[in-house]
Amino acid sequence: MENISLLRVAIFGGTHGNEMSGITLVNLWIKNGKEIQRKGVETKPFITNPRAVEKCTRYVDTDLNRAFTTENLSAPSGDDLPYEVKRAQQINEIFGPKGSPDAYDVIFDLHNTTSNMGCTLILESCMFVQLLRRLYVMQKAIAPDSCPVLLTEHPLLKYSTSRSVAKHPIGLEVGPQPQGVLRSNIFESMRVVLKHALDFIELFNEGLEFPPCSVDVFRVWDKMDYPRDTNGNIIAMVHPNLQDCDWEPLNPGDPMFQMFDGTTVRYEGVGTVYPTFINEAAYYEKQQAFVTTRRETLVAGAIKKA
Amino acid sequence: MENISLLRVAIFGGTHGNEMSGITLVNLWIKNGKEIQRKGVETKPFITNPRAVEKCTRYVDTDLNRAFTTENLSAPSGDDLPYEVKRAQQINEIFGPKGSPDAYDVIFDLHNTTSNMGCTLILESCMFVQLLRRLYVMQKAIAPDSCPVLLTEHPLLKYSTSRSVAKHPIGLEVGPQPQGVLRSNIFESMRVVLKHALDFIELFNEGLEFPPCSVDVFRVWDKMDYPRDTNGNIIAMVHPNLQDCDWEPLNPGDPMFQMFDGTTVRYEGVGTVYPTFINEAAYYEKQQAFVTTRRETLVAGAIKKA
Repeated sequence: MENISLLRVAIFGGTHGNEMSGITLVNLWIKNGKEIQRKGVETKPFITNPRAVEKCTRYVDTDLNRAFTTENLSAPSGDDLPYEVKRAQQINEIFGPKGSPDAYDVIFDLHNTTSNMGCTLILESCMFVQLLRRLYVMQKAIAPDSCPVLLTEHPLLKYSTSRSVAKHPIGLEVGPQPQGVLRSNIFESMRVVLKHALDFIELFNEGLEFPPCSVDVFRVWDKMDYPRDTNGNIIAMVHPNLQDCDWEPLNPGDPMFQMFDGTTVRYEGVGTVYPTFINEAAYYEKQQAFVTTRRETLVAGAIKKA
Repeated sequence: MENISLLRVAIFGGTHGNEMSGITLVNLWIKNGKEIQRKGVETKPFITNPRAVEKCTRYVDTDLNRAFTTENLSAPSGDDLPYEVKRAQQINEIFGPKGSPDAYDVIFDLHNTTSNMGCTLILESCMFVQLLRRLYVMQKAIAPDSCPVLLTEHPLLKYSTSRSVAKHPIGLEVGPQPQGVLRSNIFESMRVVLKHALDFIELFNEGLEFPPCSVDVFRVWDKMDYPRDTNGNIIAMVHPNLQDCDWEPLNPGDPMFQMFDGTTVRYEGVGTVYPTFINEAAYYEKQQAFVTTRRETLVAGAIKKA
């Protein structure tokens, strides 16, 4: 049985300055933290990119949620660094250092998406199978709504997220919500998931033991770009049959894009994939129309606090 | 009977650089204008704010769609002017001058909103009742979908829009669509309305006469801000009962906002209003949670081309 402790927990909002649910919740909790206090746990709400929040823009110089690379974190500090790189170094000092025993135990990073992803928990690794167990509890806790788990562990795709500073990084992605908009339904969903996650951590720290279990996850498989002309201009849209169908199976031959002249582009991959982040606003600049995933069942061992 | 002519028609996209349907359609039509060509009509597709489009942002220095004031249009040109003011002067030269006989007959200005407004036609004045007649035809043309008409004529609220350069300005607002996202359903709706509008102009120029009729419109009544604390921070969200309910009646006592502590703020105005632009992303900075309107029936006289 593995032993871990979950004593220091941070809640990040505003890693992207136009994703309003996390920004609003974290600002509320900075003013009054009663709602996120749990016995035996230090919970710290924190706005990670305050300048982007002020401007209501995703970022100022560069995407903070891709800025936590070893290179950036070890760069000599100076005024010529992009704002988000300086900010990453500060965050790493407060909540890290990344990869060290001093790092925070858990960081929940609160995000919104324009995609119809519901409440998605994003895990960066299945090394810590205990995390999966925790997620499983959360999944149950917010039933009857489903709470898919996206596992971003991939041999080629590296994200260097803000939350990666913690020992156990957890992204919470809730949508659909336009950038710069606060919707009450999305706000309440995020609030409920966080409540159950913190309740779990309290139970865990009280010594409650959780037996082994199996967990269904969607593992990142590939990225799919929009069709483009030779100048790089987008020449098609996500097909209406695929739009808003995050987490639903896409089979070879299924419609994927609709060209502006009305013709259909079909999926030609091998086997069934489960697309997500479909038509996310912020991913146009990343040449990404959606992410494909594969379903997997992972087995999580028993966990108990240290 | 009034006599008018509709010979020069412009179609504006990108007045806001992150409203993707109009930008995409206008760029398609600049490459190949066959779809918008009509007998006896000069149709000019035009990107109004190319720098904002390039950055995928609403504007660079200031909102172009509020920049067409007499003061801006007559300001001495110079490098120190905000980008959008310079651009307004250029657009006024090409498609105006505003208020002059040389101005374009019609400008369709293509917009998207994050609000659930469907396809809305926006008129700035009911002085030109013939416009209403045209809109009525368009409304019928795109049936069974409804196509509400928003009349922004108001003694206090002045907009100074890009399209106001034309003799007959028509805004087309289609949603819901997040900023920076292109959705196929919204794209197709906009394309269909434009098709029918141009078809109508062709028929009109061929001498088809339209008898008098009555037209239902929503006239702008008031703006409603989010509840705020003494520091100006927003402390509530659009209530779930109101969210996405653009054009539906709001009666005194109906829920309007939901405070972050869960309490409800109710509408306390006099009589029924019809809210629209509910929770539009771009209107947070304008201190506007939604616009209220009143329903009116206007009578449009017969029209025939000059």
